[in-house]
Amino acid sequence: MPDIQLSLADARALAEQCLKINGLDDANAAATAANMVAAERDGCVSHGLFRLPGYVTSLRAGKFDANASPTIEQLAPGVIRVDAGAGLAPLAVTKTLEALAPLARTQGIAAAAIVRVFHMAAMWPDVEPLAEQGLAALAMTASASFVAAAGGKKPFFGTNPMAFAWPRDGEPPMVFDQAVSVMARGEVMIAARDGHQLPEGVGLDSDGNPTTNPQAVLDDGVLLPFGGYKGSAIALMVDLLAAGLIGQPFSPEIRRAANFDGGPESGGMLIIALDPDRFGDAEGWRQHAETFFAEMLAQEGVRLPGQRRFANRARTTKEGIRLPAALHAKIVELSGHS
Amino acid sequence: MPDIQLSLADARALAEQCLKINGLDDANAAATAANMVAAERDGCVSHGLFRLPGYVTSLRAGKFDANASPTIEQLAPGVIRVDAGAGLAPLAVTKTLEALAPLARTQGIAAAAIVRVFHMAAMWPDVEPLAEQGLAALAMTASASFVAAAGGKKPFFGTNPMAFAWPRDGEPPMVFDQAVSVMARGEVMIAARDGHQLPEGVGLDSDGNPTTNPQAVLDDGVLLPFGGYKGSAIALMVDLLAAGLIGQPFSPEIRRAANFDGGPESGGMLIIALDPDRFGDAEGWRQHAETFFAEMLAQEGVRLPGQRRFANRARTTKEGIRLPAALHAKIVELSGHS
Repeated sequence: MPDIQLSLADARALAEQCLKINGLDDANAAATAANMVAAERDGCVSHGLFRLPGYVTSLRAGKFDANASPTIEQLAPGVIRVDAGAGLAPLAVTKTLEALAPLARTQGIAAAAIVRVFHMAAMWPDVEPLAEQGLAALAMTASASFVAAAGGKKPFFGTNPMAFAWPRDGEPPMVFDQAVSVMARGEVMIAARDGHQLPEGVGLDSDGNPTTNPQAVLDDGVLLPFGGYKGSAIALMVDLLAAGLIGQPFSPEIRRAANFDGGPESGGMLIIALDPDRFGDAEGWRQHAETFFAEMLAQEGVRLPGQRRFANRARTTKEGIRLPAALHAKIVELSGHS
Repeated sequence: MPDIQLSLADARALAEQCLKINGLDDANAAATAANMVAAERDGCVSHGLFRLPGYVTSLRAGKFDANASPTIEQLAPGVIRVDAGAGLAPLAVTKTLEALAPLARTQGIAAAAIVRVFHMAAMWPDVEPLAEQGLAALAMTASASFVAAAGGKKPFFGTNPMAFAWPRDGEPPMVFDQAVSVMARGEVMIAARDGHQLPEGVGLDSDGNPTTNPQAVLDDGVLLPFGGYKGSAIALMVDLLAAGLIGQPFSPEIRRAANFDGGPESGGMLIIALDPDRFGDAEGWRQHAETFFAEMLAQEGVRLPGQRRFANRARTTKEGIRLPAALHAKIVELSGHS
C-alpha cells in the first residue's frame, strides 16, 4: 500500500479528532495533537502519529485523566511546581512554560517540577519555545526502566531523555533531545515493526547476551546506555533530578506501575530555564555564540543538533507528511465511534 | 626506583610549599594543594600531584595572578558572578560555594558564573561540598579544544567536564565528574608518559585516522566524544553554558589563547545548586533516593559513580599515597629556591 500524504493541518486535525472522539478534552487534545504532529513534521516519526494508538488504548482504559487541568504553585522564589493532575504532558508543559519563562527572566535561573504527568511525547517541544523567547533551557524526565546501568544486564534506568535548547540569532534555536540509551526505545519499536535488525551494541536479550533482534530487546531484554558508564551517569542524574528531587517515581518504580499498553506512564519532569541576559554578557552572548556555531559548522562532517529536524520541518511544511497506510487506516478506525 | 610513600598531610604540605616557593600566595596555595591532594587521595592521579609541575611552569611565567582574590557580585536574585581575578580555580570555587549554598537554600535553585578563572583541577571537589550540605549540584567548564565534534576529525570541544553531586543519607555524596571525551586528557598524558597504548576508539591522529598511540593523539591529534553524537551534544551544552552564557571563551577560543605549558588556561565555569528541600518532597527525598540507590546496587556488576574514589579515600587516609619517585624528585627540585 502506498503511503498516505497529509498536510500538517490535516494531520493535526486527524490526531485531534481521534483523541477527542476517544474522550480527551479539547485543551488536552489540541496540545497532544500539536506535539505529535510537530514530531511527525520534524521527521521524528517514533514520537509522531505512531504513538496515537497507544494514547487511545490508555484513554479508553481511563489510565490518565482526560480532563486534567494543570495547577501551578510557587515553592520557592526560583521554583514552581506544576501538578498535571494525572493528565498528559503536552498541556501541562504548555502551562508550565507560560509561568517559567517570566520567572527565569526575573530570577536569572528558575526551575519547574512537573508532577503526576503522563509523558510519552518528544521532549524538544518542551524546551524549544523557551529558546524562541531568548532563554536557554534544560528538561529531563524519568521513564519506565528499559536501560541497563553500566555493568548491569537488566533494565534499571528509563530511557530518561534530556533536552537542551539555546536561542539563536535569526535562526531556529539549537535544540537536542536525546535518550540515554544508544538508541531510543521508539526507534527499536519501529525496527521491530518493520523487521529491521539493530546495529551492534544497542541492546541485550533477556539472558543478558548482546542481540541485534529488536523484538528480543523489547521482550524482557534491555537497552544499553550510550557511551558506557558515562551515559549511565547521565541516566542516574536524570532519575535523581526528574524523580528524586521532586518526589516523583524513579524509573524502576515507574516500570513496576506500568501496564505496557503502549500509552504513557505517570511520572515527573524537571525543566530549568536560564536567562542569558542575566549572566553578565547581555550585550554580547548572541553574537558570541553565533561565531562559535559558525566555526563548528565550518568543520567538514559536523552538524548542529536539530539541523536535520529543521530541514525536515521546512520540507514537510510545504509538502506535508507521509503516513504508512496501515497506520493511517488504524487512526481512521480508532476515530470511528468508540 | 620504588614509589615514595607519603601521608596525606605530608603530600599536602609538599604541594603547598612547592606552590608558595614558586610565588603563589597563601590562600591560593592552600586551596590548590588541597584540591590536588584530594584528587591524589581519591586515586584520580591524573588530577593529582602529576599536575604540579605544570602549575609551577605557569606560575614562574606569570601566566595567572598568584595573588588573585575572587570577588562576588549578584547579577539576579538567583545568579552570582564570581570574578576569579585571573587566578586559579580552587580558591575561587571555595569562595563561590560559600555564597552559592545559602543562595540555593533561599531561591530553591541558584547559579554561579565563575569568570576569568584558570581551571585545570578535578571538578568533583567543586560540587561534593554542596552535596555534603544537603544540596544537589551540577558544575561544568569549557577547556581548550582537544575533542572532535561528532562527525569531525579536528579538535573543536574541550574535554568540557561536567560534575554532578547528590546528597546521601549517612553516606558520602553520590558524585560523578566526567570529561566528554571517551578518555580524559590527563589519562592520555599518563599513558604517554608510561608508554601504554590506548584502547580503540579513544582518538584520532593528526591525519584524522584512528590511533592507539597516546602521543599521536596529544601531537595535533584529537580525542573522540563518548557515545558519538550524544556525547558531542553534551560537549556543546557545556560550551554554551560555561562559556556562551557567561561571556567567557568557548573551547576553540581557549585553545587559540593557550600556550600548552602544562598549566591551566583561563576560562569560565558554571555551577548550579538545587535545594531538594524546596522542590516539594522535603520530608521524603532522602529516604526515597536511598531506596533507589539500594535497588541499583543490588544489581550484579553495577556500582555507583564515585564508589571507587571513596574506597581509595578510605585506604589512603589510613595508608597514605604513593608517588612515582621521578615525580617526587621533580617536585622536590621545583621546591628548591627558584
